[in-house]
Formats: sequence, structure tokens, C-alpha cells
Amino acid sequence: METSADGHRQAAAAAPQNGNAAHVCPDFHAAIELIGRRWAGAILWALAERPRYFAELTASVPGLSDRLLSRRLRELESAGLVERCVHDGTPARVSYALTEKGRALEPVLGSLQDWAREWKLSS
Amino acid sequence: METSADGHRQAAAAAPQNGNAAHVCPDFHAAIELIGRRWAGAILWALAERPRYFAELTASVPGLSDRLLSRRLRELESAGLVERCVHDGTPARVSYALTEKGRALEPVLGSLQDWAREWKLSS
Repeated sequence: METSADGHRQAAAAAPQNGNAAHVCPDFHAAIELIGRRWAGAILWALAERPRYFAELTASVPGLSDRLLSRRLRELESAGLVERCVHDGTPARVSYALTEKGRALEPVLGSLQDWAREWKLSS
Repeated sequence: METSADGHRQAAAAAPQNGNAAHVCPDFHAAIELIGRRWAGAILWALAERPRYFAELTASVPGLSDRLLSRRLRELESAGLVERCVHDGTPARVSYALTEKGRALEPVLGSLQDWAREWKLSS
């Protein structure tokens, strides 16, 4: 896969008229592969509403194990979409919230939901 | 996970103010889990440009095996996003195109790409 900064521009120029393959935009691909990981979308959805404690996220997403939730949160944190906050107390509690980058994704997730509702994807 | 037609409405009513967990909208969840499957977004991206033969899709998405491409195409066809057309000839060739439902997803994919470019997700 192309990862150069202007890879998608080269691809767009090369693509359809001459029958060549379209090269998938690396930005798009990175985004869909990140938020499309199993349960990642559901986690972002739950955090779009408000910051949540770990246990609340577990309860929000039935079927998601603590282990996988931890992993997804680390991935989303590493990608800069989610931030972690440790609250004083015994035991200390950890909450998670969307960053500015994560909040910027909300309209995209909203439009995906609109599409899914309109086309009855869950039925 | 709730799968009733109005499950998300119940969830929205029950959610944040009282501290209960938010239940993820089943429509949204079904959508993100479908298009977020490995390479599914890339396949939709390639088909958003124009209909393509199987071999063109293979070339468009480096790293995607024929076997997985077939599987994803069947899933997307089964979900009503992609349609398959067999062309006469020896050997017969098979092309794939977005349906109306699949084309309705294009603005969502476009806004995801805009977000990814703005926030430099591929870097």
C-alpha cells in the first residue's frame, strides 16, 4: 500500500480512464481500518455522548470483554482519538474521553448512523 | 445487543443523565461492523469510482488475497451494497458495482476521508 503523503493524488491521476486499478487513498484506508476494528466504533459511539469510566464502557457494549476493551482504548489513545484520565481515590478510577481529533469524527459517525437507519442495516 | 427496530430510541431515552450505560445504536453498530471489516472499506472505495472486474479489485487493493476479496464481495452483496454482473464471453468475466444503497454510502466515506486527511491519520 502506498504511504507517501501524496500517494492518493498520484492514484487519482492514474486511475479510471486507462483501465488501471484505483489505488485506495491511504488516509481513508488508515481511518476505516482503525475505527472499523471490532467494537472500536461502538466505543467511540459511547464516548461521543460523554466521558465514561472503564466499567461504564463495558456495560455500554455488551459482548465486549475487559481485555479487548483495554486493547481498543490503548489503540484509540495511541491514534490520538481518546484520552485517559486517572481520578484520585481508593481505588483510583480511570475515565476516558474523546480528544478534539476524536470529537471531529462525530459528524462522520452520525452520518454513518443516518445511512444505516435509512437503509435498515440492522434488520 | 438490542436488535429491535426501535431499540436505539429506548437506549437514547435511558442513557446519560442517570448514569446508566449508553447502549450503542444497533443500526450504527451493524454499519460500522460491516464496512469496517478488513479491506471492506477499500473495496467500497474502489467501487465508488466505477464498476470493476474482479482482477481490477485485486490490483486496487494490494495485500488483499483473491479468497478474502471473494468473501468480502459476497458479504457486501448480501448486505445489498454491491451487485454482481456476469459478462458473456470465454471466459466469462464478472464485474462488481455499487447498488443505490452502496452509492448512498459514498458521502459518508468521503467525510471519513476528509477527517483522516485533516488529522493526518496515515502519517
